[in-house]
Amino acid sequence: MAVKRIGVFTGGGDCPGLNAVIRGVVHRSVREHGIEVIGSYDSFNGYFETPQRVKRLDIDDCKGLVAKGGTMLGTTNRGDPFDYPVEKDGKIVAKDRSAELAEMIRAEGIDGLVAIGGDGTLGIAKRLMDEHGIPFVGVPKTIDNDVGATDYTFGFWTAVQTATDAIDRLHTTAESHDRIMVVELMGRDAGHIALAAGIAGGADCILIPEIPFDIEKVASKILRRQKKRRQFSLVAVAEGARPVDGQVSVLTQRPEDEVGGQVRLGGLAQRVSDLLAQKCKMESRYVVLGHLQRGGTPIAFDRALATAYGVKAADCAAAGNWGQMVCLRTPDIVTVPIDEGIDSLRQVNLTGTWIEAARGVGICLGDQ
Amino acid sequence: MAVKRIGVFTGGGDCPGLNAVIRGVVHRSVREHGIEVIGSYDSFNGYFETPQRVKRLDIDDCKGLVAKGGTMLGTTNRGDPFDYPVEKDGKIVAKDRSAELAEMIRAEGIDGLVAIGGDGTLGIAKRLMDEHGIPFVGVPKTIDNDVGATDYTFGFWTAVQTATDAIDRLHTTAESHDRIMVVELMGRDAGHIALAAGIAGGADCILIPEIPFDIEKVASKILRRQKKRRQFSLVAVAEGARPVDGQVSVLTQRPEDEVGGQVRLGGLAQRVSDLLAQKCKMESRYVVLGHLQRGGTPIAFDRALATAYGVKAADCAAAGNWGQMVCLRTPDIVTVPIDEGIDSLRQVNLTGTWIEAARGVGICLGDQ
Amino acid sequence: MAVKRIGVFTGGGDCPGLNAVIRGVVHRSVREHGIEVIGSYDSFNGYFETPQRVKRLDIDDCKGLVAKGGTMLGTTNRGDPFDYPVEKDGKIVAKDRSAELAEMIRAEGIDGLVAIGGDGTLGIAKRLMDEHGIPFVGVPKTIDNDVGATDYTFGFWTAVQTATDAIDRLHTTAESHDRIMVVELMGRDAGHIALAAGIAGGADCILIPEIPFDIEKVASKILRRQKKRRQFSLVAVAEGARPVDGQVSVLTQRPEDEVGGQVRLGGLAQRVSDLLAQKCKMESRYVVLGHLQRGGTPIAFDRALATAYGVKAADCAAAGNWGQMVCLRTPDIVTVPIDEGIDSLRQVNLTGTWIEAARGVGICLGDQ
Amino acid sequence: MAVKRIGVFTGGGDCPGLNAVIRGVVHRSVREHGIEVIGSYDSFNGYFETPQRVKRLDIDDCKGLVAKGGTMLGTTNRGDPFDYPVEKDGKIVAKDRSAELAEMIRAEGIDGLVAIGGDGTLGIAKRLMDEHGIPFVGVPKTIDNDVGATDYTFGFWTAVQTATDAIDRLHTTAESHDRIMVVELMGRDAGHIALAAGIAGGADCILIPEIPFDIEKVASKILRRQKKRRQFSLVAVAEGARPVDGQVSVLTQRPEDEVGGQVRLGGLAQRVSDLLAQKCKMESRYVVLGHLQRGGTPIAFDRALATAYGVKAADCAAAGNWGQMVCLRTPDIVTVPIDEGIDSLRQVNLTGTWIEAARGVGICLGDQ
Repeated sequence: MAVKRIGVFTGGGDCPGLNAVIRGVVHRSVREHGIEVIGSYDSFNGYFETPQRVKRLDIDDCKGLVAKGGTMLGTTNRGDPFDYPVEKDGKIVAKDRSAELAEMIRAEGIDGLVAIGGDGTLGIAKRLMDEHGIPFVGVPKTIDNDVGATDYTFGFWTAVQTATDAIDRLHTTAESHDRIMVVELMGRDAGHIALAAGIAGGADCILIPEIPFDIEKVASKILRRQKKRRQFSLVAVAEGARPVDGQVSVLTQRPEDEVGGQVRLGGLAQRVSDLLAQKCKMESRYVVLGHLQRGGTPIAFDRALATAYGVKAADCAAAGNWGQMVCLRTPDIVTVPIDEGIDSLRQVNLTGTWIEAARGVGICLGDQ
Repeated sequence: MAVKRIGVFTGGGDCPGLNAVIRGVVHRSVREHGIEVIGSYDSFNGYFETPQRVKRLDIDDCKGLVAKGGTMLGTTNRGDPFDYPVEKDGKIVAKDRSAELAEMIRAEGIDGLVAIGGDGTLGIAKRLMDEHGIPFVGVPKTIDNDVGATDYTFGFWTAVQTATDAIDRLHTTAESHDRIMVVELMGRDAGHIALAAGIAGGADCILIPEIPFDIEKVASKILRRQKKRRQFSLVAVAEGARPVDGQVSVLTQRPEDEVGGQVRLGGLAQRVSDLLAQKCKMESRYVVLGHLQRGGTPIAFDRALATAYGVKAADCAAAGNWGQMVCLRTPDIVTVPIDEGIDSLRQVNLTGTWIEAARGVGICLGDQ
Repeated sequence: MAVKRIGVFTGGGDCPGLNAVIRGVVHRSVREHGIEVIGSYDSFNGYFETPQRVKRLDIDDCKGLVAKGGTMLGTTNRGDPFDYPVEKDGKIVAKDRSAELAEMIRAEGIDGLVAIGGDGTLGIAKRLMDEHGIPFVGVPKTIDNDVGATDYTFGFWTAVQTATDAIDRLHTTAESHDRIMVVELMGRDAGHIALAAGIAGGADCILIPEIPFDIEKVASKILRRQKKRRQFSLVAVAEGARPVDGQVSVLTQRPEDEVGGQVRLGGLAQRVSDLLAQKCKMESRYVVLGHLQRGGTPIAFDRALATAYGVKAADCAAAGNWGQMVCLRTPDIVTVPIDEGIDSLRQVNLTGTWIEAARGVGICLGDQ
Repeated sequence: MAVKRIGVFTGGGDCPGLNAVIRGVVHRSVREHGIEVIGSYDSFNGYFETPQRVKRLDIDDCKGLVAKGGTMLGTTNRGDPFDYPVEKDGKIVAKDRSAELAEMIRAEGIDGLVAIGGDGTLGIAKRLMDEHGIPFVGVPKTIDNDVGATDYTFGFWTAVQTATDAIDRLHTTAESHDRIMVVELMGRDAGHIALAAGIAGGADCILIPEIPFDIEKVASKILRRQKKRRQFSLVAVAEGARPVDGQVSVLTQRPEDEVGGQVRLGGLAQRVSDLLAQKCKMESRYVVLGHLQRGGTPIAFDRALATAYGVKAADCAAAGNWGQMVCLRTPDIVTVPIDEGIDSLRQVNLTGTWIEAARGVGICLGDQ
């Protein structure tokens, strides 16, 4: 049965290139396949609003979109239809509204979805398919680039570029002031952004979740530099980086920094900065880039990649090739079964090219 | 008596354009006036080190310098020669080493100085002149642009550009997520950076030290936008912005946020963000740009301005026109007596063009 | 009689910041003065089309406009209503349609205009006022910054920034290849862009319309650099730069390069590059930046300035203060009578600060 | 026999990332392998100069190099040692100086070379190995990304980014003026830059060497857009793009534009622009980016990639694994025999992902 109409939505955190994916889906569907595209706002939430925020997307709606950050459809981390927050007796409780949602989607005449999102979003889409028969094609979205099935997720290299630009800026000040500068970058479970930006920015130390760091080793690297009259150092820290066993306490000297025997997420840069200042007897400053890494116009690489993802997802949907995720296997975009795609957290390969590159130019990774 | 040799140094916080000023001083002195230039490192501190870090600067030392952030001479906020930290009996005590410094400067055969720095640095230079007869020419340096005697200090528009780029990035994410985004910018006593970047970035609210803000007015602006279906808002906050009387307590709900009845400096963005989230019932996030505003390559405006400052300062020194500060009176660089230059904090003019421009496009300044 | 409705349009070449001016006019008029704003497309041409392309502009039409290059109203160099091209007997002839236009403007209920444009556009607006009683306020627009009445026109520093970025790029290649690189920048009658970008980019030679250049002097500068082992040189040329008398022939060795005894406009970079390669026995390459200088998002300075111009123009119109042009007299936006504004070509001041700054850092201006 | 000392040099056209490769080679060789690195300037030419320009490179020589465009060693397209230009009887004649060069290299105690260059440079290095026993490791360098053995050459994505930024700028002006804008990009034999930048920049037409273009098809695309009231179009043209048979004459209306029955290289943008203006009865402008694509600081992707190439090449040399070329096989850097590496021109895959992506969003490639 020919596909006549598909739905599209974006879920999870913002990521440069979302708009370019949407544009790719719309252009290809309308131009090549004669398929209508219906966008729902703020992930699935647009369906539940009154009136519904659900809209047909035409080529004209996509003007200038390839270069625009953010997502024209809006996005959110909230609103799992299987666990939807509703008010009851003045309290917010959760309710399974997934069957209702599936009905709404069918009522729009939608044959299947293109879901653009991370693990959470794609997992929800999969349940909708498995439990309610709404088929879909997935486009992986994570700024952290930690999806094993694809060489690169869109937005990753834009985030790395933003981080590298920031490191470049901090470098001149660090050098002028003989300071340590600590910059905290995204990466909760995987350190790809910090590793790539650290190499590109010429950082002296890079701390990532995959390698528990020994603060003494970091301080020692900085002191070795000092002896060679390099009076400044730049440290890139992934937000998910953690100390080696036994050093949790040195990073949790304030009570609020410890949660259940672990270093609390957030504020890592500050604590690393304070410790290094103390150990190296140098001035130290820190910056947390935070949301700056999620926004703004995508770099050319991500615009091209996101466009190709969108076009491929549209082809996939048009062919009724559901339950697939589109992936980059350089230089091609291919599809893999969604299960294979989702269950594939990729952390930094500790014996791979990029760790070697970092060590090769003398960067301390906190373990040596 | 003809000037044969001058000293140059940079003091205080980093600022884009310092290198271009140094380059201007060196080129002009050597090429036009046949004057030698001696740079001292880390403000005056280079004189006190053993061996001294003091060096003749030639044209070849200035290669590529116009485009480079930071300062090749290093800089520091520490080391006032009138109050110099020395170790005595294992403790750090202060000592007046100014006479000693003046001697060292004379020993180098230096006829006068070009001092590139802020209030603090220029004040020290003035005391050296007044008390020890070392004459100087001042080049004003403050990223905050709060020197009344000059239209613009170099580095200011670079900081504004960096801040504006950041606001642009945050905008796409704010819009995609229906969020409030609060960005904290530099400006302890004057809000020029926040005002200019807020206008340029299309902020919805701008909070500056010159206008105590009423958090209710800010929340109210955001809620009015919401009613018109603009589901996001962007708030630019100068680090020195303060609430109206009576609202200190709402910004100091954590004990550590209050110091002597005032809101503690630092962390303002976070507190404003939390309050607005609560009052507007929206998600809110914040970013503190911090040192990103001080580093990196200067924009063209600042490179040209800093070059012109340097050239003029060299001319001024060559003419023995000491005790002057170079200033921009668009389109010319002129000189004013140093006293007039230093004593001229310029805050934002509350009835001037830029406040009108901000209000004109509907920006809330926290007072209405 | 209170102003109820104003018209706005943009005429002449593209310039970064046009959208920000429009936004300023609309916001201020609607918010503060309760005045409606009617935009006409492609300068006045929108009035003559069927159906007319003339539209009320509301605040919602201005979303995101502060950061956008170009003009939402379109612009054109063609369509002077006093000399309007119409078809007659299969040929294009000129016709005075100004009275007709004035009638159309009045029919829209428009009390006066805000004209954003250069000499040509503002001159037409003035004739419309003088001959047909349609009053207006002018906002000066020229990327070349050659309006004497205002410190800076918006868009100028964006063009300088684009040119400086280009020079930075060319520098690394020039240095790696021991080459001369010639870059042609905008500036037909005034060399402000080339002068500012040349200083900011660290050019070795800058050729501007105000100073006839002696190609031997330029070659000699490059050869002097070579002797000091600076094996490359960067030459910034304004498109309107011209050789000293007697050298026209060396730049017009191809017949097509000469027009009426003068060097033809266009292609200057190529000819200068060829000549220098020959005279210095070095490789030489050239780049013509052209339209890259007119487009793209404005830098922060121009966004703020354009916003302030727009707001001031709206205030001016609301006050019935017609026949005025808004101008920057740093730090304020003021108004001057339109005649004073238009008749004020400002070329580079040959004894001013910026020429001194250029010479100060050893830049050859073609005359020494 | 352990490798003690290696030579390194860069040859051919400038490319962003050369410095980062050199830095990677030096750091890794010195830090990990205890191998000395000797750089020769301007490819091999440094050996032939008196005194020789050949220099030991230490870690300190590599400060700040990761972010710097160009090459600290200089580069050139001239000076093939097998065909070296020498003066004889007042004329320049070619002479085989390869044996002499090999002797000079051995005299430096160099065990092997790291050659960073394109086809030409690597071919010369191979002859030196084959005919004179000087072994080497190759690092492929081409801004055009047309080496089949590697996923990406460094510098390519920087060039694409520069081109995309330019297209973004031209877009706003094209739209404001209802114009055609033609931008000429690099790519003599392969259209990768134009294809990627065209997709990323949202071009309407992309003309590449791999697909002979029919100017009527291009004009027809532009006219179709006009009917949908998209009054402007942006055309990206690779410098090596050529018309279909039978249309050579329309592009060579000026005699100088034809060479041996083919369209002359150079000036393609101008001719395409003129033709489209005439056929579509629209204004049209063109820009030739030229050397802007070769210079400037590399983007983060290329800095990281170039670093990894350099480190891998050093490892390869240290292991005596000569006659190899380092290649990216995402996500790893691997080595392939040099013959396999050189003989592998990769043009755009006409049935691949990127052509599909371009067609998917409605871009005209000149053939349909």
